[in-house]
Amino acid sequence: MNQFTFILTRPQMPENIGAAVRGMANFGLSDLRLVAPRDGWPHDDAIPMASGGFDHVQVSVFENLQQALHDCHLSFATTARSRDMQKDVYSPKAAISYRHKNFDFSCKTAIVFGAERTGLTNEEIALCHAIIEAPTSKDFSSLNLAQCVLMMAYEIASFHSKDKPADHVMTPAPLENFNGMFDRFIDVLDHGGFFKESHLRPKIERNIRTMLLRAQMSDNEIKTMHGIISALTRNNR
Amino acid sequence: MNQFTFILTRPQMPENIGAAVRGMANFGLSDLRLVAPRDGWPHDDAIPMASGGFDHVQVSVFENLQQALHDCHLSFATTARSRDMQKDVYSPKAAISYRHKNFDFSCKTAIVFGAERTGLTNEEIALCHAIIEAPTSKDFSSLNLAQCVLMMAYEIASFHSKDKPADHVMTPAPLENFNGMFDRFIDVLDHGGFFKESHLRPKIERNIRTMLLRAQMSDNEIKTMHGIISALTRNNR
Repeated sequence: MNQFTFILTRPQMPENIGAAVRGMANFGLSDLRLVAPRDGWPHDDAIPMASGGFDHVQVSVFENLQQALHDCHLSFATTARSRDMQKDVYSPKAAISYRHKNFDFSCKTAIVFGAERTGLTNEEIALCHAIIEAPTSKDFSSLNLAQCVLMMAYEIASFHSKDKPADHVMTPAPLENFNGMFDRFIDVLDHGGFFKESHLRPKIERNIRTMLLRAQMSDNEIKTMHGIISALTRNNR
Repeated sequence: MNQFTFILTRPQMPENIGAAVRGMANFGLSDLRLVAPRDGWPHDDAIPMASGGFDHVQVSVFENLQQALHDCHLSFATTARSRDMQKDVYSPKAAISYRHKNFDFSCKTAIVFGAERTGLTNEEIALCHAIIEAPTSKDFSSLNLAQCVLMMAYEIASFHSKDKPADHVMTPAPLENFNGMFDRFIDVLDHGGFFKESHLRPKIERNIRTMLLRAQMSDNEIKTMHGIISALTRNNR
């Protein structure tokens, strides 16, 4: 099930990373990415909790979430409670089902998990296509990081154990291609005087990113967007 | 969800009991029974891992599994690999579904978990009505005890959460608003020399419309798009 990548952003406890590795290995997942782990990586404290899982899971380290997502086509941010953000919210089951029904095998899909104490920041969530919210109890909703990983790994394995993917619709471009286009887009907007109040800029950027991500543009469509940006910036009226 | 009881038989590590309590509380389960916990009960080492979960879960202790099951109507033994035993074997999902489809609310249902190292003995499995087998990887099938608890708690909560496809957190703008923006967009593209070959224009227009429609823009986002178009057409570089 190499089409799934799990990303832990700023994980604090190596023990949780180890437990996450074990849970992934239990359900046949092998690609774990760490974004800026607090105590560095590799770490001895992760080994006992992994219980041999490192033989099955490859772990790589990235500086930020954007880099960790570079080759992923689709990305889900896991949150305990969905924020006030214009993104689709799926249950774990619905997210996996959505992915399989709408995209073909080669669509690399990232599940992104936040730090133990704080979860994902709004900026991190904005980098993802959609949100996964677990059906947790309202008054005790905060899952342990490794437990959240286990839940998603289990759901992925459950899907494969019964159902098979439908015919492909389209694969979104890898996120690094989207982000290259997006950065250029923001740059020309900036030159066009779009950002009038600089303190609002991060939020407005996030909103535009969210809106464009939702379109899940293919590689061809990213090229079209580049053509559009070129044409618009040539345009003097 | 008091109709579900989780039973840990001969659990070895208080930390795992604490993590199990947290996972149960996360998904609204409140009845945990311990059969002959190795280090006794209560135990201080369970407290940090429970992360406050003891406020939501009642823990009771029994001498053997038979006593722990005394008031349960239906019981499932969780195993990594089903033994050579004449019992029905269910996936976690199928087990919960079977319980809800065949029994009424008052049917108290036990999920029984084995000790960390050894799992359930054949004698313990024999006390249960049926077997639950997780869809784990063949060559790395042994789940951590608390992870197994989490998986079952999640599955129970998922069943109750009425899996709706996705929560669309916003309403797309009326199409006339979209089309007004789109027409203006195409117009400035045309002025920017975007459409080089006129016979391809209908197809390209259609593709751009498809891509932008997929974003399902809200009214506010349509306004943002108008601002973007204005900024881009002001841009002379």
